[in-house]
Order: sequence, then structure tokens, then C-alpha cells
Amino acid sequence: MSVTAAKGFTAAGIAAGIKENGNPDLALVVNTGPRRAAAGVFTSNRVKAAPVLWSEQVLKSGQVSAVVLNSGGANACTGPKGFQDAHATAEKVAEVLGRGAIEVAVCSTGLIGVLLPMDKLLPGVEKAAESLGEHGGEKAAIAIKTTDTVHKTSVVTKDGWTVGGMAKGAGMLAPGLATMLVVLTTDADLDSDALDKALRAATRTTFDRVDSDGCMSTNDTVLLLASGSAGVTPEYEEFAEAVRQVCDDLGQQLIRDAEGASKDIKVEVINAATEDDAVEVGRSIARNNLLKCAIHGEDPNWGRVLSAIGTTSAAFEPDRLNVAINGVWVCKNGGVGEDRDKVDMRFREVHIVADLAAGAETATIWTNDLTADYVHENSAYSS
Amino acid sequence: MSVTAAKGFTAAGIAAGIKENGNPDLALVVNTGPRRAAAGVFTSNRVKAAPVLWSEQVLKSGQVSAVVLNSGGANACTGPKGFQDAHATAEKVAEVLGRGAIEVAVCSTGLIGVLLPMDKLLPGVEKAAESLGEHGGEKAAIAIKTTDTVHKTSVVTKDGWTVGGMAKGAGMLAPGLATMLVVLTTDADLDSDALDKALRAATRTTFDRVDSDGCMSTNDTVLLLASGSAGVTPEYEEFAEAVRQVCDDLGQQLIRDAEGASKDIKVEVINAATEDDAVEVGRSIARNNLLKCAIHGEDPNWGRVLSAIGTTSAAFEPDRLNVAINGVWVCKNGGVGEDRDKVDMRFREVHIVADLAAGAETATIWTNDLTADYVHENSAYSS
Repeated sequence: MSVTAAKGFTAAGIAAGIKENGNPDLALVVNTGPRRAAAGVFTSNRVKAAPVLWSEQVLKSGQVSAVVLNSGGANACTGPKGFQDAHATAEKVAEVLGRGAIEVAVCSTGLIGVLLPMDKLLPGVEKAAESLGEHGGEKAAIAIKTTDTVHKTSVVTKDGWTVGGMAKGAGMLAPGLATMLVVLTTDADLDSDALDKALRAATRTTFDRVDSDGCMSTNDTVLLLASGSAGVTPEYEEFAEAVRQVCDDLGQQLIRDAEGASKDIKVEVINAATEDDAVEVGRSIARNNLLKCAIHGEDPNWGRVLSAIGTTSAAFEPDRLNVAINGVWVCKNGGVGEDRDKVDMRFREVHIVADLAAGAETATIWTNDLTADYVHENSAYSS
Repeated sequence: MSVTAAKGFTAAGIAAGIKENGNPDLALVVNTGPRRAAAGVFTSNRVKAAPVLWSEQVLKSGQVSAVVLNSGGANACTGPKGFQDAHATAEKVAEVLGRGAIEVAVCSTGLIGVLLPMDKLLPGVEKAAESLGEHGGEKAAIAIKTTDTVHKTSVVTKDGWTVGGMAKGAGMLAPGLATMLVVLTTDADLDSDALDKALRAATRTTFDRVDSDGCMSTNDTVLLLASGSAGVTPEYEEFAEAVRQVCDDLGQQLIRDAEGASKDIKVEVINAATEDDAVEVGRSIARNNLLKCAIHGEDPNWGRVLSAIGTTSAAFEPDRLNVAINGVWVCKNGGVGEDRDKVDMRFREVHIVADLAAGAETATIWTNDLTADYVHENSAYSS
């Protein structure tokens, strides 16, 4: 159902020939409703891809008519020509749809440092426009995949209105947004300020807390488009919760498809003095390569959890720290706790609880293990 | 030559039975000279092993008579009993040598969260004391190995005085000291303030800039002991440079023996606004798992260098960044530079230069690639 679950949107996904293997690589999402309000959240990486720089400008107006997305090339670190290409792509979409280019957001994903084959991309835009349909969401979700093994979509339907979306991302997943492109749509009628507020609140506790490999992308983009086609303006809180649910679901799908992963790891930090402390500690644990290898080996190596906590500036006393792995408190008061042999590590999901014993705040970061498959996939990616 | 290259020191390395495989696991270094001045630098991890907490107290007096080191167990996260064990070890050394326990530094390395087998360690101290000799430095260096494939020693000899040392460390190598134990000795006659100044200056630009896997240990310790046996007090600058050279040499040996590594990577950041900026950028590049995988695959993936730079707070403009890999400027002005196919990646050493074009400061961080062997070694370590 994806981005066409909400009324007032059409979508398409086609093969433009950007990917050498002939797989779908170009998606188009068009708002056909009475409203064109939109919000966007972008990578906080200071090296931003050309489409991000372009789309940030587009979102300033709070209006988006269409989103064009390509896989097979990130159009990042491509200089002035790369920006011209992003602009030309938006112009082409505007031309075929009869809209203004400044209302066309552009997203790209793939290898950094390579110019897009515009001779294939621009004809692809025409082909995509011809394929647009009210059931095109699934095909659009498929066309934005890179190393993703599955496409990711999610839908929440409420009384008379819907929030739906699609996401891609499998590697370079990190804070300040996983490396990913996400397009969310709704037929609810809200202005761009409400969309922006709901989107930022949702990403802060969902995508921002998915940390596969600590590597922040140059291209991360999350867009939320509202068509108003349902003719309903929901209560803000109810709407924000629906957006959060879709983001949470898509975030979980991203982590489950992380490159080479064999374990999904939920790092829950409890009893922190502040939420920031909880997030800092959770991220430090989630990024510890030694721990990620240990989890891969089904080894409940809590010492690596403590050594990761010890590198943070969070409030805690080393001799009051407690750690549970899959429900067994293997570390108590900074030392040896229950028998580590009691920890059952056979299943894909691993749950680590780090108790800082310093307050009442909590945060959960999702990550995955570090595997030889991750190394293989990322050492061969551009070759 | 190791820690006994300088006059006024004896050392020993023996098998006490701490390691189940029967390999050497206990080292003793004794200052037999007229002076006992010493300095120490310890992990900045807030979760500190018991021997670190003990040795920090010892170093407050600026006097060290002996250092006892064990491999096969880190004595970290072991609670009050772990501290008692570190203390008891120092007492035992003091007893057999006829020195004060408060002048005996203790170092441990191995698995976190396991108590040391004191019934083996204490008799081992007696055995080590019986084996002490003026040529024992090599055996001591061997006895402190864990996953190290080779032992590491270094010596610099000047006019009438010497600085020598040994190091261990292969994984969990990171900032604020690689996971490592290092003991340096000199027969020069200097007070503890001069030793401290020289040691801190040396570690700041050597061990602190070796970053294998971003994981900071609970046990890192670098000690510098001066016997005064040469009867010479060198110029401070000359002495400090000799200490720096030994630290640099040992740091290089650590990175060359990093777990599973197939490439040694020199990350040189140039034209930074400040040295702190240069170090921050260098570390960010050195810790980027995606880049480390790419280098393993002999792929000059400069886009991953730029995306790592972009996550820092250093002063730079994205469109003025330049990156060279093995002498080829593959990225110029934030975009595509020379042909990446010109980059020869066949050799073990890889040299990355990141030009921030923002000033005149520089820093070099050493790291290594991320390999399936690293994953294997660290997923099986405690099992």
C-alpha cells in the first residue's frame, strides 16, 4: 500500500537504466489532492548530497507537489554539476506533470562521488509519469532499493484518514537519520507547520535511534506529504502518534534488513539522569564493534557493555551499574552478577538493558551485530 | 632488549597458570637503581579495572619500585574483591622483593568480569621473583601478550643513557590510549615531574592517535620508570624526544598487530584550523566502519571519507575538501578528482590525506581495516 494508501496520491516505480543490472531504479510520488502541504527532515551530515541541498530549498515553502527518487547513484560529492543535475531532474518532473519545479523534491541513493546518467534519468522521468497510478506505491518502494533485500512499507489507518509510507536503507545507518530515504503520505488535511512538528517528533525517537553501523549518510531524507483528500483534520496528538507508528514500523524494518546482520539488538538504557544521557549511553553501546562481534558469536560479554558505558559523559557511578542480557542480570553493581551461562542467545532478537541507577529517564536504541557478511558486502560495494 | 635495555632494571616472564593453555602470563619488572622516580598514564574510561585504580594511587607518590603484570584476566568489573586482589598482588611483590607495596604498580589484561585465580597468581609472583634477571625484558614482553601475535619492544640509546620498553595490545585499541599495557624504563636520572611531562607529551601524539576499533579499554596503562643507574641527567627536550620515539615505535607495532587487520591505514589530516579539529576529523575517518571495509576490499572509496568528515564539528567548507588516497587526489573541491583507478591499493600500508583547506594544523591517526577475521576473533574471544 505504501505511499498510495492515503487518498490523493499516485506513484510509479520503473527501470530507467541507472542501475546496470536493469532493476527498477526510479520512483515518482505525486500529490493529486486539494492540498500540497509537506514537511521534511534531512541528514545532519555537513557533507550533503546535491538532492538534499535542492530539497531543503523546496521544503522552505512548506509545499511539495511531487517527489522523484532514484537509486543507483547518490549524486553526493558531485560539485556544481551534481546540483545542476538535481535541479534539472526537478524541472523535468515539473514539465511532465505541469507543476512548478520548486515544488518537486528530489532524493537519490547509491554510490557517492559519481555523476548521475542524466541521459537515462530524464527519459526515465517521462516513463515514470506515464506509469503513475493509485496503486503504484508498492512499485515505488521497490524502485528505491539499493542493498535492501526487501522493500519496506507501512500504513496506519484511522477514522477516515490514513498515514502510509515507504523506506529504503540497509547500510550506512546511523544517527541523525539512518541512511535512508523515506516518503510518508497522508490524506489528512494539515498545514505544513503541523506536519513539520509531527515529523520531527516522530523521527527523534524512531529513525534517529536506529544505529546500525554508526555511519551517517550524506543523503538521508524523510518527507511527509499531505493531500487533504480525506477532507478530515484530525487532532494533532492523534495524527502525531500515527506518524510515529509508521516511522517506528519502518525503522524496525530498516534494522531487520541491515547489511549482513544476524541479530537485531535492542539496547534499552534505564534509570538515566536525563534522556540525553540515556541516548548517549545507548549509542555508545550500539556502536561498540567488540560488543557487536560478541553478540554475533552469541556471547553475553557484558564487560564490553560496561567499557562502552565508561566512555560516555553520562551521570553514573561505575559500581552501581547493572546490565541484563535477554533477561539475565549478568552484571550487578558494576561486577559479576547472575551466571552468564543462563543467557539464551539463540534467537535473532537480543535485548540488552543498561541500568545507570542515576535517575528515571530511559531511551532505546536499535542496532545489529557486526558480521563477516557486513565486511564482505561493504568491501565489495563499489568494486 | 625491552625493559632491561636500560641499566638498573631486572625483569622476568613466567607461566603462572592463569592462562589455561599454559602460556606465559605473569611478568615482573623491578627497578634496582639508585632512583625510583616514575610516571603513569591511565585509561580515561570511567569504568576502570581494579589494577588501574590501585596503580593510580601508587603513582601519586611519583615512586615505583616494581611493576607486576598479568595476562589471562583483566580484573575489571570485579567489585571490591577485585580491588583486594590487586592490592594482595602488590603486597606479595613487596614481600618477596622487600619493598613497600605502595611502590608496586599492578597491570592486568584479558577478559573483563572474571576474578583472577589468586591461588595461581600469588605463587606465580614468587616464581617470577626467582627468575628476575638483567636480560629478562624479552620474556616479560612475551608474558603480557593476549591476542597479540608478536611481542613488542623498542629501545632508543643516546649518549650514556637509554629508554626502552615493552607493550601489548591487539584489540580494543582506541583513544585515550589503545588497550594496552606499556612499561618504559630509563637509566637516565630524572625526577617524576619531568618523567610525567615527557610521558604525557609522548602519549598524546602516539598511543592516543592509534585507533584500531574505537573501543576504549578499562585497563590501559603506560608506565615510565627511571632508575638513575646511568648517572646522567639529559636535557629535557632530548629525553622527551627519546620517550616519544619509543612510544611511536611501540604504537606502530600495536597497529601492525591489530586483530584481523590486513591493511595499516595512516590517516593524515592537513590544513585544519586547529590541531583538535585535525584529531577529531582523523578519528572520525579512522572509525568509519564502511570506509574500513572499503579499504579491506582495496576500494579507494573517498565518498566514505567525506561522509565521515561531514559528521564532525571541525571548521571546513564541504566544497573545498580534498582527499588523496595513496598519493592520488581522488577528491578535489568536494567533488570528483583524479581517476580512482590510478590508486594502487595492493600494499599493506594505505595513506589517506584529508585536506580541510581551513588552516595550517595537522594530525595523523593510525588505524586498520575491518575484516572478517576481526569479526571472527572477537565473536569467539570469551567462548
